Amino acid sequence: MLLTLDHLNSAAQTDFVAALESIFERAPWVAEAACAKRPFPTLAALFNAMTDAVRSADPTRQLQLIKGHPDLGERTAALTAASKAEQAGARLDDLSKKDLERFERLNTAYQTKFSMPFILCVRRHTRESILGQFDRRLQNARDVERETALTEIFRIAALRLADHVIAPDQLKVHGLLSTHVLDTSRGRPADGVSIELFEVSATDELRVMAKAVTNADGRTDRPLIEKRPLPIGRYELRFAVGAYFARNGTVGDPAFLDIIPIRFAMTEPEGHYHIPLLAAPYSYATYRGS
Amino acid sequence: MLLTLDHLNSAAQTDFVAALESIFERAPWVAEAACAKRPFPTLAALFNAMTDAVRSADPTRQLQLIKGHPDLGERTAALTAASKAEQAGARLDDLSKKDLERFERLNTAYQTKFSMPFILCVRRHTRESILGQFDRRLQNARDVERETALTEIFRIAALRLADHVIAPDQLKVHGLLSTHVLDTSRGRPADGVSIELFEVSATDELRVMAKAVTNADGRTDRPLIEKRPLPIGRYELRFAVGAYFARNGTVGDPAFLDIIPIRFAMTEPEGHYHIPLLAAPYSYATYRGS
Amino acid sequence: MLLTLDHLNSAAQTDFVAALESIFERAPWVAEAACAKRPFPTLAALFNAMTDAVRSADPTRQLQLIKGHPDLGERTAALTAASKAEQAGARLDDLSKKDLERFERLNTAYQTKFSMPFILCVRRHTRESILGQFDRRLQNARDVERETALTEIFRIAALRLADHVIAPDQLKVHGLLSTHVLDTSRGRPADGVSIELFEVSATDELRVMAKAVTNADGRTDRPLIEKRPLPIGRYELRFAVGAYFARNGTVGDPAFLDIIPIRFAMTEPEGHYHIPLLAAPYSYATYRGS
Amino acid sequence: MLLTLDHLNSAAQTDFVAALESIFERAPWVAEAACAKRPFPTLAALFNAMTDAVRSADPTRQLQLIKGHPDLGERTAALTAASKAEQAGARLDDLSKKDLERFERLNTAYQTKFSMPFILCVRRHTRESILGQFDRRLQNARDVERETALTEIFRIAALRLADHVIAPDQLKVHGLLSTHVLDTSRGRPADGVSIELFEVSATDELRVMAKAVTNADGRTDRPLIEKRPLPIGRYELRFAVGAYFARNGTVGDPAFLDIIPIRFAMTEPEGHYHIPLLAAPYSYATYRGS
Repeated sequence: MLLTLDHLNSAAQTDFVAALESIFERAPWVAEAACAKRPFPTLAALFNAMTDAVRSADPTRQLQLIKGHPDLGERTAALTAASKAEQAGARLDDLSKKDLERFERLNTAYQTKFSMPFILCVRRHTRESILGQFDRRLQNARDVERETALTEIFRIAALRLADHVIAPDQLKVHGLLSTHVLDTSRGRPADGVSIELFEVSATDELRVMAKAVTNADGRTDRPLIEKRPLPIGRYELRFAVGAYFARNGTVGDPAFLDIIPIRFAMTEPEGHYHIPLLAAPYSYATYRGS
Repeated sequence: MLLTLDHLNSAAQTDFVAALESIFERAPWVAEAACAKRPFPTLAALFNAMTDAVRSADPTRQLQLIKGHPDLGERTAALTAASKAEQAGARLDDLSKKDLERFERLNTAYQTKFSMPFILCVRRHTRESILGQFDRRLQNARDVERETALTEIFRIAALRLADHVIAPDQLKVHGLLSTHVLDTSRGRPADGVSIELFEVSATDELRVMAKAVTNADGRTDRPLIEKRPLPIGRYELRFAVGAYFARNGTVGDPAFLDIIPIRFAMTEPEGHYHIPLLAAPYSYATYRGS
Repeated sequence: MLLTLDHLNSAAQTDFVAALESIFERAPWVAEAACAKRPFPTLAALFNAMTDAVRSADPTRQLQLIKGHPDLGERTAALTAASKAEQAGARLDDLSKKDLERFERLNTAYQTKFSMPFILCVRRHTRESILGQFDRRLQNARDVERETALTEIFRIAALRLADHVIAPDQLKVHGLLSTHVLDTSRGRPADGVSIELFEVSATDELRVMAKAVTNADGRTDRPLIEKRPLPIGRYELRFAVGAYFARNGTVGDPAFLDIIPIRFAMTEPEGHYHIPLLAAPYSYATYRGS
Repeated sequence: MLLTLDHLNSAAQTDFVAALESIFERAPWVAEAACAKRPFPTLAALFNAMTDAVRSADPTRQLQLIKGHPDLGERTAALTAASKAEQAGARLDDLSKKDLERFERLNTAYQTKFSMPFILCVRRHTRESILGQFDRRLQNARDVERETALTEIFRIAALRLADHVIAPDQLKVHGLLSTHVLDTSRGRPADGVSIELFEVSATDELRVMAKAVTNADGRTDRPLIEKRPLPIGRYELRFAVGAYFARNGTVGDPAFLDIIPIRFAMTEPEGHYHIPLLAAPYSYATYRGS
């Protein structure tokens, strides 16, 4: 349910807390503490008030907050609705038997070592990077890992706030992936070029994430990914330039260049990745642009 | 068995014919006719003498020559040894059930229309381009198709001659695929870069054709394909630049560029394809070079 | 003096005509004719009304309009203020003795052949392209040349209207030249890169037209040329990437790449030319972008 | 006068010394010492014997060798023939009054500080880099500078040996500058492209060093510079691609790309600089290749 910041600023305390209690998992006390700091001129100010409440809580309460989160892979247990939708994004409900076993092994090792659930803002990750995070965080000392868990809880909270509250400002929780196709043999944007974006798995399997066609300016009408974090992982863009050049007079059977694949990694979920393609019938170039 | 041109020039006629009778399938009369034109200063001269003999034969004999060839897909029939090795190259002995049915359907249609076997120099083709040839040649008029069959027979003969006879000259029957990796951030060849070459099927499956590692000059010690025709088809080169840049100090987890795939088609089996990669940690370019 | 379209729509006829009489040189009748068509919702509508008045005038009056224009090179005669400022742009007041002679020779030839002044919207041209226009238009037939003269008069008028009238719409009379510098070795915009734009003369002399420094996004805060037509001619951009790479750790004395010159022509005065530079310490690329 | 190494190995001692006495300026004792080490299987062995003789000489004799060299700018004094030809290369005989004064000022400062002539292998330098060397070496301590002078004397000697003696091996004293033009819109070498190579002075004046036209392979028949050291300095290559693209059907008046200038520095006189141009009608790229 969408709420405005104005509404939250003027709501009764119980309504305020009820509206925001799901931002921090099973911890309505965070919303209660923030409520006392009203009014908030910006969403950032509200977010800061909530994270301040957590930061200034005593360690026992912080640990309680951490332990209030569900296991990442706890499939049979009751997940809160918000957690469930987030975890479906990284398709943890759809693991192969082998992956599931690896996942559960890591999860068990983590809980054994730290006595707390493995918390991760999964919307910032792909399946591959979640496994990588497990491996890496299992090496952490206990206090470092508690700190890491809080950081992830704040990321989850920021995304939930951004999803639910309409405000004059925006939290920096989303990334952007865009592209642009130039025909360097004619010095103009390449229009009508079909583009596909795939996520690339550890075993090089491709999963379609977006499809688009370039417009008269050689761009897509909307970014390939927007209004969400860019999941850390490996990607492949495919540009159907063969059909474009054929329409513009270049022949060849098959053409020297047909589908151009560009494979790259994104590691900044809140970043802007611009991946242009400069193509002529027998040459192309790409780069991380801005 | 390798023979020198000198040896052929001075051999007894029966030996000459015996040595060359397999160049034109079941047609020793071609070698006999060429024998009368000895000596040959070059392999090209010998080849021309043989093709002249076919060209000047009457149409009935030409048709006999054509019909002397095995069906491309005749898997149970007795193939001559030379044909068998050539057809294994395009893996016609390893077709899926569905492909085999398509293949046999086209083959039957061809024989029904033209009353002669479908002849193709398969070493110049991939599975995909063979099927494409079938489709296209089925549209031909009868006389055009006879001419096409002779052209293919000459290509087969030229390759067989090049395989069996050592001469001062070489027939232009082989192609070349080479590459070169430059590190444009350091202005020097990229050494130690692993490269894989794949053939890409119609359904985008990849079949490894060659592997290599770049040397100190950023090149491979030997061309990726040489001493054979380049089969008409689609290919993908993969360059492991991520490991190279990591060795040279560029970090990222994962790196923005790791495996760079370059997908291209080759349509000139006797051509030289040079496909360089110019790479920096966040940019690359490729082109058909020379 | 700037006027709003609203003001023109509601002004007394004499004021309307007085305000616009200089749009068409010594031809207040054009403004008078347009006045009768008020009100104009857009500047384009006003402009069309004025050109319609010229188009529907009889040939004698059109010729009168043409002859009312000053000679392009008439340096001693009295120029109207608007013409004078425009011609200073292409520096016709600053010609070498040799160029001046060539100019006057062409001008005399033109007047002899056509009995009318050579009219050209000089703000769309450089000295070189003016001379080229002379050469080309001297080949025209008389009626083609009258048509050409009217086209140029309309271009002059459109620019004058755009300069003097504030309206909700804009006439398409201006062009844009922009750039963008990417550091492809680090995958980010190159900031602090000094850029110079030169006009290149027929004898390869360079005249500075603009200077700028790239901002954090690798772009210049304002386009290199904007709010005016792009004079048809040859240009050189110079990017001081050596200093940029030195600040970022690449050494070399001197550096392999220091000042990168990019030479290009612009032939569409109302177009958008985007000329990016993709640079690494030992490599660069450029293209006409969008 | 050219001599073979065999001839030197078997010549009388006086002839050997006479043949090589000019290799080290006014120091026949170096040739004498080397003579005792004959025979030399390679030119490198002969060169090493001569430099060993200098290295093992006592400091007084080394200083004598250094002082036996002419002043770099000593224009009125008698230069040995070999020195004269070498210095004409960097055009020290053709300095402007202002440059000459700067030159003489640096020269005087050097002699005052070090009491010895400024020795530099000028064939490895341009005017600009000579002045840079002066500035830098004036900062040196006396012993460092004596060592530097010997290094330069060895470079001069190596070049003189390479010029005069024919041997099975070659001293690594020469560099190479080559280029290659690819048409990336057609995937083939660009032939018939006129190329000019200029040396760029500190004040951006261009001096022609070489002209060439690309052949069918897009290369020049001979390297732009070969069989000599590459003078340390700044250079500009100009490629007339406009004419090439016009011949191949791309229009534009003027064309977007006409003369493409590439400006770069060379700092390794014995290196190989390969500077390719990848060009399409609206795009190009260059890089230091190999």
